[in-house]
Amino acid sequence: MDESQPSLDDAFGRILARCWAAGAAPWSAVEIIERDDALLGASDAARYFAEPDAWSPLERRGWELASGRVLDMGCGAGRHAVAWAAKGLEVVGVDPSPGAVRVTRERGVDAVEGSVAQLPRDLGAFDTLALFGNGLGLLAGPAQAPAVLAALAAAARPGAVLLGMGTDPGDDPAHADYHARNLRRGRARGQLRIRVRDGATATPWFDYWLAAPAELTAAVEASPWTLDSLERAPEGPGYLAVLRL
Amino acid sequence: MDESQPSLDDAFGRILARCWAAGAAPWSAVEIIERDDALLGASDAARYFAEPDAWSPLERRGWELASGRVLDMGCGAGRHAVAWAAKGLEVVGVDPSPGAVRVTRERGVDAVEGSVAQLPRDLGAFDTLALFGNGLGLLAGPAQAPAVLAALAAAARPGAVLLGMGTDPGDDPAHADYHARNLRRGRARGQLRIRVRDGATATPWFDYWLAAPAELTAAVEASPWTLDSLERAPEGPGYLAVLRL
Repeated sequence: MDESQPSLDDAFGRILARCWAAGAAPWSAVEIIERDDALLGASDAARYFAEPDAWSPLERRGWELASGRVLDMGCGAGRHAVAWAAKGLEVVGVDPSPGAVRVTRERGVDAVEGSVAQLPRDLGAFDTLALFGNGLGLLAGPAQAPAVLAALAAAARPGAVLLGMGTDPGDDPAHADYHARNLRRGRARGQLRIRVRDGATATPWFDYWLAAPAELTAAVEASPWTLDSLERAPEGPGYLAVLRL
Repeated sequence: MDESQPSLDDAFGRILARCWAAGAAPWSAVEIIERDDALLGASDAARYFAEPDAWSPLERRGWELASGRVLDMGCGAGRHAVAWAAKGLEVVGVDPSPGAVRVTRERGVDAVEGSVAQLPRDLGAFDTLALFGNGLGLLAGPAQAPAVLAALAAAARPGAVLLGMGTDPGDDPAHADYHARNLRRGRARGQLRIRVRDGATATPWFDYWLAAPAELTAAVEASPWTLDSLERAPEGPGYLAVLRL
């Protein structure tokens, strides 16, 4: 065992559980994300519990578009799922993190372990497929995205809508080297390779795609979905994409 | 260049500068400390700016023991130095971090780059040598400590006092593996090897010794200093050591 490497564990779930145990108080748990170029970022895990009035206007508007039976992919601590359930919608959360699933369930919403790549087969069909909280990152990359979108389409009822929040990688000079490195390696500019770290533990590395709107559009065109609208936040790199079958 | 390694830089100073620029607001900057077994810890850098009324009673009591001309080794953001200067004492801060020195100076206290291993020669002599804010960690280890203590003695006026705050490594099961690993490697149990990380940067690795009181006593006995008192905090692993020549 390489003692200089963290041990593989549910670091993300550990962080959410600690924050939840502390009443989701600000900074009661810090999420550390490591990028594969050794960049570390630290942020307040309480944002995974933020109430709707703390969301961005775009996020709130996207959230309001959900209807019927909702699949919340990458549900995290249930930030959106809990609010949908409170509104009377039937929600199932899916997250690869056992700890995230546990916290979401403790908050009263149905949730199961799984990922977009390995969607549990017995979940039934949905009217809304939600990739919120920058969940479009879970499309993983241009090569993987069409298959992920197809898997979500397979879980969709006729007339279903896919609601996704994404982030334009932009041209921040601070990330120019990383974007160039990705291109050199045949990856998309904003195709992050990251893992969550907590104490001496880390999740597996995974791809998380910050797709520019044009990149997302191309991925959608290679999928069963049609891009209905793509709205940028008035400020910042975020956007809301609405896809239909 | 190994792209999976952070670049060597003044990560500690960057964190303090960011916190200072934000008015030392809570969680305006996060300090990430990496231990050489891949343990990461995240904490609020605003603690480096804490005012005396936020210190522990033991820290405040130790701080009050300073008199005359004070050398603040590892002054950080000047937490103790600024308060000593406000009390009318003459203080010189020393820190290996250029950013820490800059922040301390901006707060109106004299400070210079240096370390216990490389104490600037032209600082003059001091009545009080302070290793605060767990500064006894700077003794680095049982092998290095006597030389560090001798270097501090060389900067001391007759009758000088050395005030040091330390931490007993204790027997927390969470750190048992690390302590055992240290012993296997011929190191002291609580002899941490750590570095500060910020973004894509890191300080060099350095030894930081959490010495049990008996270990500290032995190190002092091999130095020009005499242990006058060692007071444990009523709760927790902290202690205050008072040394005289």
